[in-house]
Amino acid sequence: MTTFDLTREFIDSLRELIDHHDEKAVLALLDDLHPADIAEIYGELDLDEAKYIYFLLDDDTAADVLTELPEDDKLRFLESLPSEVIAKRFIDKMDSDDAADVLGQLDSSTQQEVLSHIEDIEVAGDIADLLTYDEHTAGGIMAKELIKVRDSWNMNTCIRSMRQQAEEVDEVYYVYVVDSRDVLKGTLSLKRLLLSPEDIQIRDILNEDVISVRVDTSTDEVSNIMDKYGLVALPVVDGVGRLVGRITIDDVVDVMREEAEKDYQLASGITEDVEISDSVWIHTRARIPWLLIGLLGGVLGSRVIGGFIGILGEHPHLALFMPLIGAMGGNVGIQSSAIVVQSLASGSMGLDTNWGKLVKELTIAFLNATVLSLIMFGYNYIVDAGWPLSLTVSAAMFSVVVFASMFGTFVPLLLKRINIDPAVATGPFVTTLNDIIGMFIYLTFGALFYALLL
Amino acid sequence: MTTFDLTREFIDSLRELIDHHDEKAVLALLDDLHPADIAEIYGELDLDEAKYIYFLLDDDTAADVLTELPEDDKLRFLESLPSEVIAKRFIDKMDSDDAADVLGQLDSSTQQEVLSHIEDIEVAGDIADLLTYDEHTAGGIMAKELIKVRDSWNMNTCIRSMRQQAEEVDEVYYVYVVDSRDVLKGTLSLKRLLLSPEDIQIRDILNEDVISVRVDTSTDEVSNIMDKYGLVALPVVDGVGRLVGRITIDDVVDVMREEAEKDYQLASGITEDVEISDSVWIHTRARIPWLLIGLLGGVLGSRVIGGFIGILGEHPHLALFMPLIGAMGGNVGIQSSAIVVQSLASGSMGLDTNWGKLVKELTIAFLNATVLSLIMFGYNYIVDAGWPLSLTVSAAMFSVVVFASMFGTFVPLLLKRINIDPAVATGPFVTTLNDIIGMFIYLTFGALFYALLL
Repeated sequence: MTTFDLTREFIDSLRELIDHHDEKAVLALLDDLHPADIAEIYGELDLDEAKYIYFLLDDDTAADVLTELPEDDKLRFLESLPSEVIAKRFIDKMDSDDAADVLGQLDSSTQQEVLSHIEDIEVAGDIADLLTYDEHTAGGIMAKELIKVRDSWNMNTCIRSMRQQAEEVDEVYYVYVVDSRDVLKGTLSLKRLLLSPEDIQIRDILNEDVISVRVDTSTDEVSNIMDKYGLVALPVVDGVGRLVGRITIDDVVDVMREEAEKDYQLASGITEDVEISDSVWIHTRARIPWLLIGLLGGVLGSRVIGGFIGILGEHPHLALFMPLIGAMGGNVGIQSSAIVVQSLASGSMGLDTNWGKLVKELTIAFLNATVLSLIMFGYNYIVDAGWPLSLTVSAAMFSVVVFASMFGTFVPLLLKRINIDPAVATGPFVTTLNDIIGMFIYLTFGALFYALLL
Repeated sequence: MTTFDLTREFIDSLRELIDHHDEKAVLALLDDLHPADIAEIYGELDLDEAKYIYFLLDDDTAADVLTELPEDDKLRFLESLPSEVIAKRFIDKMDSDDAADVLGQLDSSTQQEVLSHIEDIEVAGDIADLLTYDEHTAGGIMAKELIKVRDSWNMNTCIRSMRQQAEEVDEVYYVYVVDSRDVLKGTLSLKRLLLSPEDIQIRDILNEDVISVRVDTSTDEVSNIMDKYGLVALPVVDGVGRLVGRITIDDVVDVMREEAEKDYQLASGITEDVEISDSVWIHTRARIPWLLIGLLGGVLGSRVIGGFIGILGEHPHLALFMPLIGAMGGNVGIQSSAIVVQSLASGSMGLDTNWGKLVKELTIAFLNATVLSLIMFGYNYIVDAGWPLSLTVSAAMFSVVVFASMFGTFVPLLLKRINIDPAVATGPFVTTLNDIIGMFIYLTFGALFYALLL
């Protein structure tokens, strides 16, 4: 099977077939595709076309496609269906974690209604259980389906029981071993299963070094643990160590991506998780808060500049380099913050004291500041800008680069200490502040050098 | 086993034990730890202390720890060891992909020397093979270790062969099925193995819908495919479809993280992948290119402002809002670019024409521009800034927000079309350009309104 590339031509011909209600041809077109590909196609169709296709697909494929849909499309689709159809055609065919994700999007009375239509009471109970966990905890992303065996069994009993359990689980990566009270004791790898004799007791071959998390462990920590220890699946236990579920790596990849996207959006001055397909209203709401902060910063900046209006009137050439100094403070500050934010996020910060980091950052800042202010001095010499302006620009450049770099390093560390997401520091907040302070430094040097040298 | 949290106290007591050459106590302290934890501890020790610990560990653990070390530490450590030790104590104990990663860091004559010390010629050959692939392709991150069976075998033969092969493979997630020419035919899941009778032929139970990639597929595409289709392992085939290796999700998680970090760093104006622990020299080299571009932008900006020096001399109050207008253009441009860059990266862009996107972005821009310029008009009314300045600021604000937003949307789309990483568009380049153009718009409006109204 090769992967599928969605094209405009494909969508056009699919739409034409749907228009002509040519069921056979539509199915033939979709036959070889993975549910994830069909979900991608859905993004290009309207609700009626999508529904038409849904009811042509077999139940398992339809459920898989639903799981793969983006949150908004999923919700729009579910809201157009009666709860019995949701229960029997979708929820019943899904893994418990996917089912809980889907149900979690509906209001609680619809949730109850859908659950009441599920025949197997144990399945319904598992899903209801999962719905009680916060979505940012291990409980919120785990699945109930897993294969577990008792430590007191021998290999023969174990294999027999696994055969029964395997019918209900899609993918098996590990077999979990529990004691008679359901407390997690270890794992059994496929490798061990293949290599061990039939009469050996499970407790003699199980791997006891199993890393587990509690249901209330945060998803961020889950993702750090799976990443650090290179795990594909992670068992989840309750407060007394009983095995209640497992998390697989694909769920955690989503957590990691969301985390990275959030940092990137913060750095770009966007406050909500927006997609290009969201409404104009959501986009405006996500962007305007930072713009307002920028506006406030600009207004404060204008008050600072207002304090120097006399000197600006006498020497308007001072205005030439105001944008340069402001932008440079912003750029340097963002660079320094980004390094710290990323080190904090990846845990590569180590145990060094903050002083050590500040000293190193100071050295880098001095190097950059020297290079940049010398270049500007050379430029101003060539264009014959005069001593007062040349000295003002280079002195301000040096001070601003050093100051912004210190500030950019210190702010995320401070935010971290008071439990605010340090990624905020790379947003327009620090840029704006650096901008204002840079302006003050520049104009103060200007006032000084013009007073001294003219 | 619970997870380990590194503390300053732990490092201090470990260092004291190393000072006293107390081998037993050191080993006792490290006994329960995962190789990833020991690697983290290494980051806090100097080279001699790290070496002392290395030679206390058993070979398998030592090899696992080396695999987990950050690139620089790994290289520093390897360079201090003779190639025979590298071969026998490290490379020989590693999976082929990790071994190739480690060797890939050494120069090619050392590589040859290390390989010549590996006794098993097949193992050495596998690693030498892997070294020939570009590190940004599937071949560069795949491992050679995998379990494969023939489609013509029955279950009994299959299990017997798997037992033999399993001894050489650490983790088994899938069993791959090939024909007599080694061409990939499908997979056999653990579930199928558990549920099928012993005398059935493999070709009757294999899953033929297996997604594979070629050795020359880029790692970005590999990560997109594994993510989209929710895969834990992905088989790699050569140009004629023969199975040559497999990629596991943990390798791809690294690729994903690097990709996300790269985008974040580009957005923050850093050109190289730097860690906080890198040298002052590397940090300076990574940061100065964008600062120089910012400098060039600022100098160009000063020429633009220079064209308006007469009006600035007459009306120095125009300088008050120069930083505000410049910063706002930069902020709006970054927001717009970030949305497009992220949509391009996650593939959520859909097939909409670019015109549709520009119209939507234009609507959002008009909304934001209206809000922001009205607020500024209100502010200038309150502080009694006078008609010319009030009109200049609000008209320029409106135009700059709309323009920067169009520009920010268009540039990443254009970069993508000419095959440049669109993430570059969120860097200082677009900000700087928006800054200059904003200044031109502002001062042009200033010249206009002061001429008309005074």
